[in-house]
Amino acid sequence: MKLCIFNDYRIGVAIDDGVVDVTEAFAAVPKPTWPYPQSDWVIQHFDEVRSEVEKLSRTSARVPLSDMKLRAPVANPGKIIGAPINYKDHIAEANADTQINHGKTFTTLDQFGLFLKANSSLIGCSDEVQIPFADRRTDHEVELAIVIGRKAKGVSREDALDYVFGYTIGLDMTVRGPEFPTFRKSPDTFCVLGPWIVTKDEIADPNVLDLSIRVNQEVKQASNTKYLIFDVQRLIEYASAIYTLNPGDVIMTGTPAGVGPVVPGDVLEASIPEIGSMTVRVAL
Amino acid sequence: MKLCIFNDYRIGVAIDDGVVDVTEAFAAVPKPTWPYPQSDWVIQHFDEVRSEVEKLSRTSARVPLSDMKLRAPVANPGKIIGAPINYKDHIAEANADTQINHGKTFTTLDQFGLFLKANSSLIGCSDEVQIPFADRRTDHEVELAIVIGRKAKGVSREDALDYVFGYTIGLDMTVRGPEFPTFRKSPDTFCVLGPWIVTKDEIADPNVLDLSIRVNQEVKQASNTKYLIFDVQRLIEYASAIYTLNPGDVIMTGTPAGVGPVVPGDVLEASIPEIGSMTVRVAL
Repeated sequence: MKLCIFNDYRIGVAIDDGVVDVTEAFAAVPKPTWPYPQSDWVIQHFDEVRSEVEKLSRTSARVPLSDMKLRAPVANPGKIIGAPINYKDHIAEANADTQINHGKTFTTLDQFGLFLKANSSLIGCSDEVQIPFADRRTDHEVELAIVIGRKAKGVSREDALDYVFGYTIGLDMTVRGPEFPTFRKSPDTFCVLGPWIVTKDEIADPNVLDLSIRVNQEVKQASNTKYLIFDVQRLIEYASAIYTLNPGDVIMTGTPAGVGPVVPGDVLEASIPEIGSMTVRVAL
Repeated sequence: MKLCIFNDYRIGVAIDDGVVDVTEAFAAVPKPTWPYPQSDWVIQHFDEVRSEVEKLSRTSARVPLSDMKLRAPVANPGKIIGAPINYKDHIAEANADTQINHGKTFTTLDQFGLFLKANSSLIGCSDEVQIPFADRRTDHEVELAIVIGRKAKGVSREDALDYVFGYTIGLDMTVRGPEFPTFRKSPDTFCVLGPWIVTKDEIADPNVLDLSIRVNQEVKQASNTKYLIFDVQRLIEYASAIYTLNPGDVIMTGTPAGVGPVVPGDVLEASIPEIGSMTVRVAL
């Protein structure tokens, strides 16, 4: 199932080139209030209403995708975690480009651990990426993003996929420079998630997915998650050793080679065929 | 005014050694629901109910502080921002200690930018700090923490204090090691805020505050915010240049010299006299 959030925070299921509004399936689920939980409400309660969502998605009318604004498919991630240097070809390219490495030599992810992207950087694919500093290089990085489905702490790699809700496409926009990634990757609009979450039952193996991005129709990054150094299970194991993961938390798995600058007006098309594709504009 | 959150998320005002429950002052403020805003509900709406809070705090009964569980005084920070190497004496100590610098040479905050602490790391002073890795050094770092009161983007240092709600004490617990600070500072329980927020009207100048921490009654860090390299206004200017700050966002301003390891059973007493003091235990 392809779960999306659209327009005025309606909950939808994408089917072919349309979306069915399934918001009413959640009508009986008590809504949270202050203090807000650290979990996203839709993701946390999805299993309780899944059969109702499936029923509505079979019987209700579809609205064309082209008519709607797609928001980030997780409205309230507790945290957005990133994995640095997690493809060997990206490590090689980073070590060869002083604009990327700034004098550092990259070896393994363990060297750095994970980083966080500010929740205030999150947008959906119908929004536009804003370049924050005209005089600094801003790069695209396309990634597979994991959406956590169950509270997880100290999870083993053998059990890791039990804690996954689904997968989405992530753009980990990045200003190049000497500062911490968590700083350079957290400007407003720098985390694009979309177009929807594919629930994990539809992804037989998250570690064999093609992923790519085109900038103004030219392919810039094209790889496969089989080249991940820390694969999906290992990332969940590694992250949950240090912090509690909550339903709706997002782990961006890292980007392959081919990162490069974007400028105002660029059109980015990110694709993972088993999930879908999304087109994101860089604001003029 | 000293605003706290206690017991089952009651809202309180601390006066002398007691707390007045002022939760009912917020009764008329609509509570948020999914999608949760990026702002903390209490901080965002405090000005609307301030006169009612003041009235209740004059007329209602006080419960002794010793009888209650103090929670983090911001229940839902949108993000918790940290400032690395922001006291010259801490830079000197870090450059002299390979367990802290791990081969790096620290010069200025601009070299690194800011980092984020995971929201899942947040606790109040009645909770206990948990040591995540028995075989790694975990340090205390006491700090002045700024609580943002108004949405801020691109704020100048001249206007910066207009965006402050108040100040609290922060413990920025840290595992030493080679990884990014955002990783080593984000384990569960590693962000302690408390005991309450002092609203900004009671702090004439946030850049002249003594701060200290004692570990098992021995003074380990004792300094003054006049030694901040990026002062409070500059931190708000610098942070708001890169991301939107929302009501309830926290900026931890950095720690002075004297950081050092803690072990299970330690008792930490952090103090900023103009705010108060808090005692936090390291879990056995």
